[in-house]
Order: sequence, then structure tokens, then C-alpha cells
Amino acid sequence: MRDISGASWVASPELIRFCDSVEKNGSLFEREMRKLSIPVIDLFLEEGRIVPASFEFSGENLDAAEDVSRILKAFPNLYSATGCRVLKASGRDRPVVTGRRVAVIFSGGPAAGGHNVLVGLKMVLGVDNTLLGVRNGPKGLLAGELFEIRESDLAQIINTGGFAFMGTDRTKIKTKDQFEQVEAVCRDQRIDCLVIVGGDDSNTNAAVLAEHLFQNVHSDGRGVQVLGVPKTIDGDLQVGDLLPISFGFDTATKTYSEMVGNILQDTLSSRKYWHFVKLMGRSATHVGLEVALQTRPTVAFISEEIAEKRLSLSQIVDTICRAVARRAARDMNYGVVLIPEGLIEFIPEMKTLISELNEVIASSSELLLDLDTIAEKKEFILGRISEDSAKLMASLPDEFEDMLLLDRDSHGNLKVSQIPTEKLLIEMVSARLREMEANPDLFIGEGDDRINLTPEEVKRFVESKFATNSHFFGYEGRCGAPTRFDAAYTFNLGLLVGSLALAGKTGYIAAINALDRGGQALAIPLVGLIHMEHRQGKDEFVIEKTMVKMDSPAFKFFIENRERWATEDCSASPGPRQLWGPVSSQLPMLIAFNQGYNSLEFDLGEERKIISD
Amino acid sequence: MRDISGASWVASPELIRFCDSVEKNGSLFEREMRKLSIPVIDLFLEEGRIVPASFEFSGENLDAAEDVSRILKAFPNLYSATGCRVLKASGRDRPVVTGRRVAVIFSGGPAAGGHNVLVGLKMVLGVDNTLLGVRNGPKGLLAGELFEIRESDLAQIINTGGFAFMGTDRTKIKTKDQFEQVEAVCRDQRIDCLVIVGGDDSNTNAAVLAEHLFQNVHSDGRGVQVLGVPKTIDGDLQVGDLLPISFGFDTATKTYSEMVGNILQDTLSSRKYWHFVKLMGRSATHVGLEVALQTRPTVAFISEEIAEKRLSLSQIVDTICRAVARRAARDMNYGVVLIPEGLIEFIPEMKTLISELNEVIASSSELLLDLDTIAEKKEFILGRISEDSAKLMASLPDEFEDMLLLDRDSHGNLKVSQIPTEKLLIEMVSARLREMEANPDLFIGEGDDRINLTPEEVKRFVESKFATNSHFFGYEGRCGAPTRFDAAYTFNLGLLVGSLALAGKTGYIAAINALDRGGQALAIPLVGLIHMEHRQGKDEFVIEKTMVKMDSPAFKFFIENRERWATEDCSASPGPRQLWGPVSSQLPMLIAFNQGYNSLEFDLGEERKIISD
Repeated sequence: MRDISGASWVASPELIRFCDSVEKNGSLFEREMRKLSIPVIDLFLEEGRIVPASFEFSGENLDAAEDVSRILKAFPNLYSATGCRVLKASGRDRPVVTGRRVAVIFSGGPAAGGHNVLVGLKMVLGVDNTLLGVRNGPKGLLAGELFEIRESDLAQIINTGGFAFMGTDRTKIKTKDQFEQVEAVCRDQRIDCLVIVGGDDSNTNAAVLAEHLFQNVHSDGRGVQVLGVPKTIDGDLQVGDLLPISFGFDTATKTYSEMVGNILQDTLSSRKYWHFVKLMGRSATHVGLEVALQTRPTVAFISEEIAEKRLSLSQIVDTICRAVARRAARDMNYGVVLIPEGLIEFIPEMKTLISELNEVIASSSELLLDLDTIAEKKEFILGRISEDSAKLMASLPDEFEDMLLLDRDSHGNLKVSQIPTEKLLIEMVSARLREMEANPDLFIGEGDDRINLTPEEVKRFVESKFATNSHFFGYEGRCGAPTRFDAAYTFNLGLLVGSLALAGKTGYIAAINALDRGGQALAIPLVGLIHMEHRQGKDEFVIEKTMVKMDSPAFKFFIENRERWATEDCSASPGPRQLWGPVSSQLPMLIAFNQGYNSLEFDLGEERKIISD
Repeated sequence: MRDISGASWVASPELIRFCDSVEKNGSLFEREMRKLSIPVIDLFLEEGRIVPASFEFSGENLDAAEDVSRILKAFPNLYSATGCRVLKASGRDRPVVTGRRVAVIFSGGPAAGGHNVLVGLKMVLGVDNTLLGVRNGPKGLLAGELFEIRESDLAQIINTGGFAFMGTDRTKIKTKDQFEQVEAVCRDQRIDCLVIVGGDDSNTNAAVLAEHLFQNVHSDGRGVQVLGVPKTIDGDLQVGDLLPISFGFDTATKTYSEMVGNILQDTLSSRKYWHFVKLMGRSATHVGLEVALQTRPTVAFISEEIAEKRLSLSQIVDTICRAVARRAARDMNYGVVLIPEGLIEFIPEMKTLISELNEVIASSSELLLDLDTIAEKKEFILGRISEDSAKLMASLPDEFEDMLLLDRDSHGNLKVSQIPTEKLLIEMVSARLREMEANPDLFIGEGDDRINLTPEEVKRFVESKFATNSHFFGYEGRCGAPTRFDAAYTFNLGLLVGSLALAGKTGYIAAINALDRGGQALAIPLVGLIHMEHRQGKDEFVIEKTMVKMDSPAFKFFIENRERWATEDCSASPGPRQLWGPVSSQLPMLIAFNQGYNSLEFDLGEERKIISD
């Protein structure tokens, strides 16, 4: 066949030079992102210069009703130092501090915007103070892997995604030895303040560290301040209207929403597939709810609702089957089902089954080893769990039965995150649909378990095909380039936490609210958020994860509309995240709903170019 | 814990009204996309109005060397009508035509920009001619499911993704009956011209139809023109410098590139996972190559290279293992491996194994039914394939052995697309790494099969963890919102194919080249692209898929750099597709390389708002 005649079949040297030069910047996109202007809260500007804020009592007090006495006992220093008072940033008597050494650390999974926290922090500390970065998260802190973050680094990392500049890990600092290691590192490196960028666990950790390092770390008796910055794509680190969301949530959900929106468009175009999409997040379903609001899928499950209504696995399967049948009756043999990663653990009967299995398997591990065949093991175990659990177990496809029995971690616990819930549901729904098609009369008519179709519709349903695909969206959303919101939110969180460092505060988490009207910078006392929780048989102090609430405006909007979304095609394509142009400044919808905002546009002050070339 | 006090725990009625109004537009993004200005090739504008082009001989002739006689015999009408001449659009003697009825159809999988073909086509036909849309692809054409596309529809579909406005399907029109059905539909609906938007198969179909409908369709002896528009995300419908690419490729590859770039960022941030990413596309690896150029992954396989070098499965596994070991030696226990969906079929020994299995299983299906256990079936089959194939078979993980033996379509052929190649490679690489760790000396030192590490490096490698994740990106990229390039390219393709319709041409595929300098609109005679191919035992006319060529500048740039990408961290985050702002006008890199362009910016004329509010 005619080939390339006419065109020179060689690359242009100019293009090759250009591509090589781009490689230094990562990509053209990253090069331009670094120049992106982002808004700065007024308070942090004086004559166009970045300046630290001071702090005053906001009028809010977070005296946790329950457990006060025990918390007081565990955190006497923080309790008296903060008085559980929420502070608000102020422009009066700005701290003038020099020579302070602040160390910042990423803890837990990455989230978009982390690098901008560093940029804000460095800029507000200015040239008279030192910012140190900790490599590889808590593990690196224990090992004393610190380095100085220089002004020249900022141009490289501003507005970029991921945590690559410092790295992160999930080590938990909890043993006495570990605390002493941290103390030693702070002493050796002359750290005055430790800033921990993390989720609920990491910020609980921050509180414990703040208490532990409150005084007598340095030879002159000074302690080390410890401050937190709210990070997690799960969005479950919230404090009512004081802390509407953690950073990273907006980027992750907008990334997943584009993918889900694209797949919804695909179903409308090829009209022959049901896609089952599992979304990252094992605990709260804020991610699933936001993606549902953004894309209007056919079916979306919210774990919290399933727990609240004590739905069974078979009820969940029926919910999907009814949607499939109703749509098939109208020749709509396609749809998208959103499944939160943690679904299984929120189904009460599954939770019971799993814990019973864990019990039996842990308690009789030796006996089990003596049994050769899976069949024998299965029989042994099934004989030792409750009847209901045994029945539920029997209702599962074989491969999943085996998973429940065999896939165990070193403590004999089930690795729930490894169960492909989306595939489990596909198999159970397919089986259930075959039953329905075999004797449709069983399902026709009124009632919850019925689908009420006309004979012609039943015919179409019985003749219809149920073709499926499954997806898991997770890692794609943690390290994408930050949205304008996450870029702005994190930069300002950096300015805020840096101001707290200079103001000598400890035991606070940085927070910004009034996101639709210029932004208000706050400091929330960590002890005000801490609770007792019963984990693996012993009491622990934790910052409670915020779950999706059944009476929240965002959830209510979802349930008011989902029936229509299931039967009609109302899906939206939210499109790829835009950093420039008319749709670049949108908040997560659930924030706008739950905070009572009038629009989806965020406002965190006037935009400015942060790093001049 | 303190809840939402302060904030009204109700949604703002204003926000709810706003969200309801947005639903009518799909999303805020889609609403703004419809207003997006896109460039129009000068030629199609006269005093700011859209006008059709006329056509003249470009000087290029596509007399296919081989098979000419047979093609002449099969396509006498098209051959004489087009003379295998490439035409170029011209502004002189523009056709002035009224009352022509043109029908347009989507064929095959969806691709971004299809809707803009309709918009361009409708606008160039103007009010004096009629545009009909065919619902549900070829299946709908056979059933005569046509409807008139009205001016008022354009505002809804312009710049939107997917094929939802008309739908599509994969029915092939090849039997005599089917041709007669199409002829009847054209007669009944008084169709003068049929525009087929599709890939290589659909455009082959277009040629056959064009020949068949050349004359005597209508009572007055007139025939029906048939024209093609090049669509496929695979990018394998190319004609040298005449047709640099099909539409949809840019959007799909930029969508996948963002996901892969995000995952690369994640590996650099959490530093503990190897991600194996399978990319849609069973034949050519243009998608894999473009994504590799955009993101610079650790390892990327190009199917064509594997076939060319006759690499074995174990050589492919070794390639990954060496990268893993070399990086582990430097404490880099992470990376991303890109795998084309069709990889398996390009590994010569696997191709042989699969065809041998297909033979045996097809020829002895009854005998196999009599055998009860898988073991027996396996033994029976293994006894009847070549020794090499049997050995290869034995080297595969059991579950994949079973897949090869059991997962068959109705013709007893293997459903290759269902083999999770990414998981196969993960298992084989893991096993191979365990071997290497068990006796590292085997692999140290010089030579292709060696990794040449120092003793300390070997120690680090042996102590390292190999943790993996797998992904398949496919449906996410077919129906996303079009990039600016795909939006502009398809709108102009619509203007071009509409002009061909008005100029009375038949048997051509629309093409635009000079994409970096205003764009040149061409018409390529389909007979000039058609070849004989041996498919399932009989000769067929086909438009050859364009594969990745080993001497193409894009591929050469890739191989010159991949070694560095494998050992260092050079990855890029190309970011989400931008429709506004500084990075919104980039061509696919492989076009810029292979066409010898000096930059990545495309230029298809002056931008203008297509639909006024």
C-alpha cells in the first residue's frame, strides 16, 4: 500500500528538541500548571505580600460531652493549653518570629494538593525560619530522614499532584519506643514544630504526639508543637461547618466522575452493557455519593444506608435486578451500578458471617491444618457458625465461599478489601435474573419484591441479554493533578498551618470554611475531636470518621432523584477536570449541599500567581 | 461530636434549582462545551459563512500495485469513476445543489467527535438539502430506522462525546439479501447519498456498498453515493501522509494517558507497587505507543515489535523481571507496565499454540464431551498438539491453562480478548522473580539474560517486595468529551464529507492532512486502499489495518528512550484533557513525529463559535 511518500519519514529535529525540553518539566501540562494563578485568602496578604495570621477565640468551644474526664486524663496538657477552643485567624498583631525550625510530614495514602501545603507553609515561614521535609512518612521520621525544603524547590512542585517530592507511608507511631525516637529526632534536628499532613488516624496520632512532646524536649525545657492538616480522598475527616472537607477529595471524585460519566455515555451509545464500578474507600461513602451526584448513574449504593436499613445481600441483589428488569422491559439493556469498596462490611448479615468465620478459623487453625480437602475444611467450619450465617454462606458463588474460607491475613482475618464485590454482585445478579426469567410470574405485580410489568414487557425482559463489565477506580484518583479547588485549598491550608506554627500553637488541626465567600481560616483543637472507640478488644482514642448521614441535604437530594435516574437516562458527563476556563472553579456538590451554599463556585479570595518565573 | 450547628443543615433552594436546571444540559461542563469555539478550515468559509468545497485532482494516484486486476473486476464502477485518484478540496466552482437527501450512520464502537461530524455535515448541506440520521448503526439501516436531523438538534450535540444521539452497532452488511434491503431502504427513503462513519471494516463495507449502489437504485436509474469518514480509537486506519489518523484516537489516548500518568505519580508517591495496565486495542499498538510517549512508563510492550522480533512469552516475562530486579537493586520497588490488549496474539509461539488448540478442540469436540475430568481433557489435547506448544502450555499458570482449554466461543475458538493478559504476566513474573531470588547467581553478570548487579544490589533485590495491581483501560476512553483536536477534526470532516455528497462523489473516504498548518481537505478513493486478505480460509477484500512500523519516527523515539525510562524515573503526568487554556491544542505525539511536524500544536484554521445561542 502507498506509504508515507511526500512526508519526510523522519521526525523534525525541532520537535525532538522540544520533547526533550518538555521532559524536564514532566509534561506540557505540568509546565503550565506551575504558572496557574490560585486564590489567596485576604487575611494572608498585606500590600500584596504573603504574611502570617495571628489567632483569636472564635467563640466556638468543642468540649466533647462524653468521655471528657478520660480525655482530660489522657491529654492534660493539650486540654489546658487549648481549652478545647476553636480559634480563628486574624490580621491583628501578626506573629513576628525568626529562627523557628518546622518539619512537615506526609502520612498515609497520597492525595492531590499535598505539594501546595508545602509551598504555602514555606512561603509563610519566609526566609527567617526553616522548613524541613520528612522523607517517606512516619517511617522516615523515626529514622530521622529530614532535609531542608528550599525556595528553589517550590517552582518545581507548585500545583503538581501526588506526594512524590517527600514520599509517604502508613507506619503508626504508637509505642513508647517510637515516641522516644521522635523526641530524639526533634532534639537532634532542633525541631520546634511538627506538621502532620494526614487523615483521621494520622491526626489522632498528631494529638498523642502533641501531648507527649508538650514540654521538656529541648534542653531549655521547651516542647515541640504538633499541628495537623486534614488530608484524605475518602472525605471522612469533616467537622460539621468548621471543616467541610479534607483535601484530595475534590480531585479524586472529579477524576472518578469523569470515568463514570464516560462509561455512562458509552452505555447510551452502544446500548448493550451493564457496568459495575467499584469505587475506592472502605469506610464512609462520601466518594460514592459525590460521584453519584455528579454523574446520575442507574444504581448507586451508599454503605451507610445499607447498614442503617439493615439490608441483606439478597435485597441488594434484588434492587439491581429490578432496575435491570424494568429497563429491559423498555429495551434499555444497559446501565451503570456504583459500588463502594467497603459495601460488604456494611451488610449486617455479612459482617456477622465474616466475624463468625474469623472466630472459628482463628480458634481452630491447627485442626484446620489437619484437614486435607477444601470440602472437609468447609464442612468443619460451616458446622461451627450460626445457621443464618451458614445459609448466607451457601447462597454465595463457590469461588467467593472459598475466598471467605481461605484468603486470610497473618492474624487469620479475612482480607475484605480483596473480595471483588463488583464481580460477586455480577454473579449473583446474573443467577437471580435467570431465576426471574425462568418464572417471571413470581416477580410481576405490586410489592417491594415485584417489578409490575405488562405481559409484553415481561416478554422483552425474558428475551433480553444481560452483558456486563466491571471496573475498580482507586489509584487513578489519588495522585492526579489537583483541581483548582484542591490547589487553592491546600495552598491556603499551608499558609494557615504555618501561621499556627509561628504563633506557637500546638494540638490544632488547620481548617478553612466559608468556602463560597472568601474562606475563613480556623484552628480546631484536636482534643475536641477525640473519642473513645472499642477497637480489637481494647479502648482507643480516635478521631471518629464522619459517615454519610441519612438526614444530610446531599444524601436527601440523592434519594429524591435516584428512582428517576434508575428508570430514565439522566446521566451526566462531568468531563475532565478543567484548570482553565469557565468550569474550573467547582466545589464538590456534597459540600455545597451540606454547607447550605447557594452555588457550586468556590471563593477563596483573589487569584494571584504564586511563583514568579 | 459537634455537628453542623451554625450551618443550616438544609440545602439552599437556590442551589437545588440550579442543579435541576443543570440536569437539562447534562452537566455544567457539557453546557460550556457546547459554546466552545473550534477552528474551521479556510476553504469552508466564505464571508464568514459555512460553504461546501468543490474537488479537483490532487496529483496523487493510488493504483494499488498488487491485485489490481482482481480489484478492477470486483469494483469496475468505482475504479472507472474514481480512477484511483486522490482529490483535494478547492474553493473554485463550489457545488450549488438543492433537494439532496443524505443519510449518515455510525458503525462499530463509539469514538469521541462523532456528533461533530453530524453538525458539520448538517451545516454544509444547509437548509436546501436534507440530512437523515440512522438509528442503531447498520442494524438500524437494514430496518430502515431513519429520522431527520434538524437544525435545532445541533445545539444539543455539538462538542459532546459518544454516539448516543443516533446509537451504533457492529452488524456487517455482506449478504446479497442485506444489500437488497439497503437498496430498498434507499429507494423508499429517497436517499441520494449514504455517509458511513466507521473503521477499516466499515469503510471496506462502504466501498462494497458504493460499488453495489452505483446505479439503478432509483426509478430514473440514479444510484446512491456512498462515502466514508475515518473513525476508530485504535488509530489503525491511516494512509501515510494523506490520512494521518482516524478521529477518536486523540481523545482515547489522552484519557488513558491521564490515568496512566496518575498511576505513575502514585508509584513515585507510595513507592511500593508495580501496576500492570492493559490498554484497549487488540490489533495495532498505536494506542500503547502514544500513551507511552505521553507518560514515559517503566516498561511498555508494542505488539508489532514482539511479532517482528519473534519474542517468546518467557522473553517478555524476563524483560519485566530485569526491570524489576534492576530497580529493586536501587530500592525502587515500583513501576508501571503497559500491555496492549492483543499482546498474546502477537507472540508467535502463543499464536501457534492457540491455533493448534483451536484445531484439536474443533475437530474432536464429541470425543472431548465424553471425557469427564479436566485432567482427562487436558491429557487428550496435550497429546495432540506439537511438543513446543505442549511445553509452552505447561509453563502457564494452571488457571490460564484451563482458560485456553475451556473458554471457547460457539465455533470452538478461544475468546482471546477474555484472557486477562495483565494478570497472566503478573503471575509469571512473580514466579520468575521467586526463582531469581532463590538462586540470584544465575542472573548476575553480563549478557541478555543477566542483570549484572553488585552483591549489595543483589541483596537488596532478594530482600525486596514485589506488590502488584492490575488495570484495564478501555471503555473509559471511547465516549469521553472530545479533545479540541477531535472536536475540530470531526467538525471539518463533516464539512468535507458533506461537500463530497453535494459534489456527487462516491467511493471516497474523507481525509484531512497538514494538521499543523491550516489543514488540507482530501478525498481518498476507497478502491485505492483495498487489498486481498486471507481470512478464515477464504479471500476477502479489506482495507489493511495500519500497524506500528519499526522504522517510524515515533517508534524510534520510543526505543531510543525506553531504556532510560525503565531505569530512572522520567514519568510525566499529562494531566486531564484541557478544553480551554494553554494546553488545549495538542496533537497526538505520534502524528507530530510521523508526519514530520515541528510542534505538537494543531492548526485547522481560525476559531469560531459554531452554534450561536
